Amino acid sequence: MLERKDLVSIEDLSKEEIEHILDTAESMKEILYRDIKKVPTLRGKTVVNLFFEPSTRTRTSFEMAAKRLSADVINFSATGSSLAKGETLRDTVKNIEALVVDAFVIRHSAEGAAYYISKITDASVINAGDGKHEHPTQALLDVFTIREKKGKIEGLNVAIVGDIAHSRVARSNVIALKKLGANPILVGPPTMIPPFVEILGVDVAYSVDEVLPYADVIMMLRIQMERQKSPLFPSIREYSRFFGLNRHKLERAKRDVIVMHPGPVNWGVELSTDVMEFESNVILEQVTNGIAVRMAILYLLIGK
Amino acid sequence: MLERKDLVSIEDLSKEEIEHILDTAESMKEILYRDIKKVPTLRGKTVVNLFFEPSTRTRTSFEMAAKRLSADVINFSATGSSLAKGETLRDTVKNIEALVVDAFVIRHSAEGAAYYISKITDASVINAGDGKHEHPTQALLDVFTIREKKGKIEGLNVAIVGDIAHSRVARSNVIALKKLGANPILVGPPTMIPPFVEILGVDVAYSVDEVLPYADVIMMLRIQMERQKSPLFPSIREYSRFFGLNRHKLERAKRDVIVMHPGPVNWGVELSTDVMEFESNVILEQVTNGIAVRMAILYLLIGK
Amino acid sequence: MLERKDLVSIEDLSKEEIEHILDTAESMKEILYRDIKKVPTLRGKTVVNLFFEPSTRTRTSFEMAAKRLSADVINFSATGSSLAKGETLRDTVKNIEALVVDAFVIRHSAEGAAYYISKITDASVINAGDGKHEHPTQALLDVFTIREKKGKIEGLNVAIVGDIAHSRVARSNVIALKKLGANPILVGPPTMIPPFVEILGVDVAYSVDEVLPYADVIMMLRIQMERQKSPLFPSIREYSRFFGLNRHKLERAKRDVIVMHPGPVNWGVELSTDVMEFESNVILEQVTNGIAVRMAILYLLIGK
Repeated sequence: MLERKDLVSIEDLSKEEIEHILDTAESMKEILYRDIKKVPTLRGKTVVNLFFEPSTRTRTSFEMAAKRLSADVINFSATGSSLAKGETLRDTVKNIEALVVDAFVIRHSAEGAAYYISKITDASVINAGDGKHEHPTQALLDVFTIREKKGKIEGLNVAIVGDIAHSRVARSNVIALKKLGANPILVGPPTMIPPFVEILGVDVAYSVDEVLPYADVIMMLRIQMERQKSPLFPSIREYSRFFGLNRHKLERAKRDVIVMHPGPVNWGVELSTDVMEFESNVILEQVTNGIAVRMAILYLLIGK
Repeated sequence: MLERKDLVSIEDLSKEEIEHILDTAESMKEILYRDIKKVPTLRGKTVVNLFFEPSTRTRTSFEMAAKRLSADVINFSATGSSLAKGETLRDTVKNIEALVVDAFVIRHSAEGAAYYISKITDASVINAGDGKHEHPTQALLDVFTIREKKGKIEGLNVAIVGDIAHSRVARSNVIALKKLGANPILVGPPTMIPPFVEILGVDVAYSVDEVLPYADVIMMLRIQMERQKSPLFPSIREYSRFFGLNRHKLERAKRDVIVMHPGPVNWGVELSTDVMEFESNVILEQVTNGIAVRMAILYLLIGK
Repeated sequence: MLERKDLVSIEDLSKEEIEHILDTAESMKEILYRDIKKVPTLRGKTVVNLFFEPSTRTRTSFEMAAKRLSADVINFSATGSSLAKGETLRDTVKNIEALVVDAFVIRHSAEGAAYYISKITDASVINAGDGKHEHPTQALLDVFTIREKKGKIEGLNVAIVGDIAHSRVARSNVIALKKLGANPILVGPPTMIPPFVEILGVDVAYSVDEVLPYADVIMMLRIQMERQKSPLFPSIREYSRFFGLNRHKLERAKRDVIVMHPGPVNWGVELSTDVMEFESNVILEQVTNGIAVRMAILYLLIGK
């Protein structure tokens, strides 16, 4: 069990807590390959997916994780709910809590939304992405995947490539990787590197080529067209050339490099389609590991 | 068990039936605080939420109630379903019934919709609000909450404040309260008091101030901006002054008054935000009791 | 069990496989009338409804079938999902598969979509309608209904009436009926008879009147206004006169004729409302049988 009610950020977690989650996720993953992929661990518990931003993937991953543990799941989305009637965030949460639920999974466009909610409810709160702040379960499934593939995390060079400045995935991963002793390197155009990067104490590079010779892991980020009010790079072609990956470039990478992406991939932008069948592309295993990690978190927070 | 197939209106129920539902809801509420908040009572039964008006709150409350009893739940909403293709109400119901279901929970903008449906199906029908007619489960959870807080219902003065004329909640509550021996008092601007109020045989007041000294319960109604084609009161500020509640006014109320609201509250209109933390605001307990009452009704109608 | 991973088309199935599905559906139907309408056969299995065209009826039928067998169900619809973000069909499927699921139920507007998906996933794929190609579970529930009502299928004259050219239901039924030894007759205006009808080797008639005297089964198709870019018949009234059914016409039919329709009926177009209460209208029984047949298919594909 974790000695905490909520999982709001990686920043909150100790190295030991992260490792405990990863170890638990390993046992959970084993359940996914049983004939009956279900255990009664959370029977009678209720998990609420409260999503203020649409994200079918993340919501479904939590829904599947909860169902594998026999919990009941209630899906709330901002559209179509009473939120449309001008209800406040506090009211929404207090009213759902009054249905006697055990955990909230929160996705919100505002930094700090999950933290705020964790303070006003006695139920467990899991942050499934709050603005540009954190996406802790994504980082946990990423380090789980690295540990599974590499046998360790400490000492690895992990290049994180793309729109670092707008990415909660990057932020959570940097924090998790540093806690576990890895060496993250941020790679992106200067416009996409956050100004506070020096404070984070991580290395920066300005093209994928620079990091190819020594990266053990290359973690590509999704270019989120919809987030950029003004263009952060001259053209897709330009971006792809310096920050995209293809098989040709991968020939210059380490033999045992692994390529990751949180999905959905813009094929032809971050990754060229010839990487799809690349043997060390672990993108779909990240999806599977997402279930295992979320099962572990639900179990460790509300399974007592 | 109830000797009836449907719950279409409070008007249909005898005092004994109402009390039987409340007693059953008491046992159901106890389940909500168990470690495993689930019983197998309705395993293999199917409850259909058939909502022609959106209402995330009521739908979710029924969904939770059904799941706590291990029933399967199917959600139908008018938008996105084959209703869009010009299907008739009768056809929709007969086709869902042919899936072999046990209960319909109906929300519809037309008075009598639930009654009509109850006549064309062998499944149980529960009215979750039909136009301005009735909302019987809301009234039952309200009287349940009053009985729980006050230890009795008979003889209590219950002020119902707001847009009485457009409120199925008010109508169902007046009927329930009178059957149980309470004294409902309708409070609202003359434009919001229905013309037939004398037929109902209840007292009327034209400001909250009038009833504060003797009300045991103050039940605020939601102002439904979207329902009023022409304005029924000069301004929100005006409405709030005469029919809203705040801590200042509550100082003139009875010591043990309780404040209720069916939700969602327009904070600053019906209730000022300083009532949020008022110790006798039981609004969130109404939400919890809604689950218990709906569990009781599902059990009593289809649990045999 | 079926010796196949997928159910993509009736064309793929042998006569023996069809009969095995129908026999299994008979046992499944019996479950629907038990007190506890649920068996644990597919506990721990996950069925994904992946619908690229909306169809509440078919989706719900599969959802109910899966739940009766205790499977978990995940509903994906094209709208609101990450598909909106420009994801490819392949990516969508591979990502859902990575959640470790057992079966996909696919509805898509493109012919061959289900086949394509069956080739890229190890999970079972069930075609719930692909463009104008096939709708195999509809045909199976139709022949199940005929067998149940008539005691046999071989040798029966089955008139299929309406927009044959645009109907996957007609296509799948013709193939199923011929495999089982029945004699399908296609009835529709010349504009609605597909040019390749001779290749199918079935009889054609140009009005309902022609087939009334000898049809054992009359299967009406739905006129899908939304599918016809240019009008295929002069007017609704005209269409109804030659290809609609009413009680008056049915007086000239065989005594024991049965009338079928895949739903939803355009009452007043394909069928006049006086057919609603006609004793041999088996439309709602088709709906019930749809659950039984889909339970059988799920069981035979993923129940091992």
